[in-house]
Amino acid sequence: MPVQFELTREFIDTLKDAVRNTDEVAVFNQIRDLHPADIAELYGGLSIDEAKFIYLLLDSEMAGDVLTEMEDDDRDEFLSALSGEVIAKQFIDKMDSDDAADVIGDLPKDKKADVLQHIEDMEQAGEIVDLLGYDEDSAGGLMAKELIKVNENWDVETCTREIRKQASEVDEVYYVYVIDDNGVLKGTVSLKRIMLARSNAKIKNLSQPDVISINTDAHSKDVANIMEKYDIVALPVVDAIGRLVGRITIDDVVDVIKEEAERDYQMIAGISEDVEPSDNVFVLTRARIPWLVIGMLGGITGANIIGLFVTDIKSDPRIALFLPLIAAMGGNVGVQSSSIVVQGLASKSLDLDSTWKKLGKELTIGMFIGLAFACLILSYSYFLSSNSLPLTITVSLALFIVILFASVFGTFIPIILNRLKIDPALATGPFITTTNDILGMLIYLGIGRIMYGLFA
Amino acid sequence: MPVQFELTREFIDTLKDAVRNTDEVAVFNQIRDLHPADIAELYGGLSIDEAKFIYLLLDSEMAGDVLTEMEDDDRDEFLSALSGEVIAKQFIDKMDSDDAADVIGDLPKDKKADVLQHIEDMEQAGEIVDLLGYDEDSAGGLMAKELIKVNENWDVETCTREIRKQASEVDEVYYVYVIDDNGVLKGTVSLKRIMLARSNAKIKNLSQPDVISINTDAHSKDVANIMEKYDIVALPVVDAIGRLVGRITIDDVVDVIKEEAERDYQMIAGISEDVEPSDNVFVLTRARIPWLVIGMLGGITGANIIGLFVTDIKSDPRIALFLPLIAAMGGNVGVQSSSIVVQGLASKSLDLDSTWKKLGKELTIGMFIGLAFACLILSYSYFLSSNSLPLTITVSLALFIVILFASVFGTFIPIILNRLKIDPALATGPFITTTNDILGMLIYLGIGRIMYGLFA
Repeated sequence: MPVQFELTREFIDTLKDAVRNTDEVAVFNQIRDLHPADIAELYGGLSIDEAKFIYLLLDSEMAGDVLTEMEDDDRDEFLSALSGEVIAKQFIDKMDSDDAADVIGDLPKDKKADVLQHIEDMEQAGEIVDLLGYDEDSAGGLMAKELIKVNENWDVETCTREIRKQASEVDEVYYVYVIDDNGVLKGTVSLKRIMLARSNAKIKNLSQPDVISINTDAHSKDVANIMEKYDIVALPVVDAIGRLVGRITIDDVVDVIKEEAERDYQMIAGISEDVEPSDNVFVLTRARIPWLVIGMLGGITGANIIGLFVTDIKSDPRIALFLPLIAAMGGNVGVQSSSIVVQGLASKSLDLDSTWKKLGKELTIGMFIGLAFACLILSYSYFLSSNSLPLTITVSLALFIVILFASVFGTFIPIILNRLKIDPALATGPFITTTNDILGMLIYLGIGRIMYGLFA
Repeated sequence: MPVQFELTREFIDTLKDAVRNTDEVAVFNQIRDLHPADIAELYGGLSIDEAKFIYLLLDSEMAGDVLTEMEDDDRDEFLSALSGEVIAKQFIDKMDSDDAADVIGDLPKDKKADVLQHIEDMEQAGEIVDLLGYDEDSAGGLMAKELIKVNENWDVETCTREIRKQASEVDEVYYVYVIDDNGVLKGTVSLKRIMLARSNAKIKNLSQPDVISINTDAHSKDVANIMEKYDIVALPVVDAIGRLVGRITIDDVVDVIKEEAERDYQMIAGISEDVEPSDNVFVLTRARIPWLVIGMLGGITGANIIGLFVTDIKSDPRIALFLPLIAAMGGNVGVQSSSIVVQGLASKSLDLDSTWKKLGKELTIGMFIGLAFACLILSYSYFLSSNSLPLTITVSLALFIVILFASVFGTFIPIILNRLKIDPALATGPFITTTNDILGMLIYLGIGRIMYGLFA
């Protein structure tokens, strides 16, 4: 098997030809050895009818895996073309409960009921309905019901027999969970440990009691933080009274981590929806409009502020030279400060520093940077340009104040948003940058009027 | 055990008191039940001497885990205060080869040799030296040598015996790797499968042959992509002729994914080093200077460009009103376009789209957005402001052209950088934003001169 499958234009074309000739054997032979993730990726190059033809040839286990691996948008589109019965029997049948719940949870309401009705295995249907009751962004929404649990009072032999029975349902075992008679999680025991133990040893004595678990209603961000910090591959999920109800595996959390990072990245890049370059023009445009509208309103407000100083500009048009520089520097410093704070809040490394200490530190940095760049622009304006003395003083002083202000503002806002339980990443987005721009211009032109007045 | 340890100021203060009284028992009792990751986190609140006192009380296994979990900067600082012998005997002794190689690889050259000389277990020392030979950002640099492998010609009983022998060295088993007589990787077999099989069954017949593996010199980004795409928990690493040399576990890859995401985020936020909010003022300032210098040079260039149009501004100072708006919109659109492309390149979802198709799409989006905002500013300027007709036409036309240009520029540059094997994320940083700003002003004032000329 190749290390990694490379999807080529030729591969897709050959496949499409086989579909056009309804040559089921040729199609099946071409995809039979592919990984489900690769088959899912084919979708981008296919029409819906072609995808239907191909994906309905797969056995139910493979079909479910392919559906799990598809991009959310692709999947929604594809499933809208299938009946509830086909979805249930061809795709959901062999899926793990968490993946099945993810797929069904995204369906429109009527379709959802339709699919659930057609699931034949009542136990699976029950588990899916249970999982659908949890918030998507909670530990309950991330977990799968499939896991292996043994009673602490069993011996190794009973336990091995029981594991054999339960193991057929679970893809990856990782840990065997130990519970008491009430179903309360008491510990874990590794397969390795069971294999190395005598057959009459009590599970209670093999069990590692200090197991890290999480409550069903914990936020997925906290799940990711805990699993990452403690290098946990499978995290058991317990209900309010400590009973074991599911487990979250690291592959689901990798997705959470990626999504969090992408969301922060798109926020700072001014993109307001989760988009892919392959999305259509309409979606891509829509995602970009909100930040541009705010930027535009900021620009118009800026124009109005500059408008208050038209006579000043008329008397020395060179004051207009530094408008973009002041606006840009204020915006840049603000984004830098807030992005550092946002990262710190995400990794909780700010916990021990108090807000005031943090602000003091940022003020010091702002002071250094502000002073350095004020001196730079002072030297440039005095020695290398034909600017007047009042203009030179104005731009240097304004740059210092604007940088200082943007540092403090950029630090304070994400901390306040976080306190108010609003996503602090908002502070790296359009609103703050634009506000910094506008205030920068006001400070610059205001100082200008005073300076020109003094020197007049 | 609590679900998660909360580090409080009180906890640190009590601990520091116990250290001050050199009360080893009190210190040990306070930290004995903590997870290594939590003990590592204490470091931020301790002086180096306090940390030495505490960490040298730990047993070697725990001490190694704590060192693995520490932040890189903290670890460098801490280890610089210890002798090579103490590092080798107290910390490295029980560490996995990959973690030990990471720690030792970061040490200064002399210290490195000193530590290696003091490792007592020659096999461990040999493995570490082997691993140090690989590039840090390659599969070889990420892998651990510890894994469980069995010969395909063995039966289940021999195999179980052998696993028991090998398993004591390996923390998490996940998979048992199957090799032939030459050490070439032939497949995997899960513990679950071995437990379910008859004891005289041949491993060859239980082995799953289609195992995804990676070469030692693959880039860590590709390792992360493959493990994420195929949901792999442990990826075997092979040498140039297919012999199994190590395995990479998902927890190491989670770190790679986080680091990649943070690097892209810091790039777009204009921060040029990997910094934490807890870093000192000097480090934080240094990380922010480069982008501000580029922004400043851009601002000065912008000032010179505007300087060419001083007479135009003198004759109608209102033309200065829209300078910041034009610059900001150009910069914003450019960052949006390039960030979408950068994300697409990272996830390879651009593979099937050709560059020209991509550019065409971006041109369409730029056209839509440009037209929409040009109409907006036209309406505003014509109906709601006292701007002259030439100014209204100038700002609308310039905004359209600037947005269109920034879209194409923002798409093209990351693709070109990627072709040249330069990190495309650079295109979201200062250079491109600044270039867009400057070109925006030139286009705006240029069109202004033409328009005022026509209407004069």
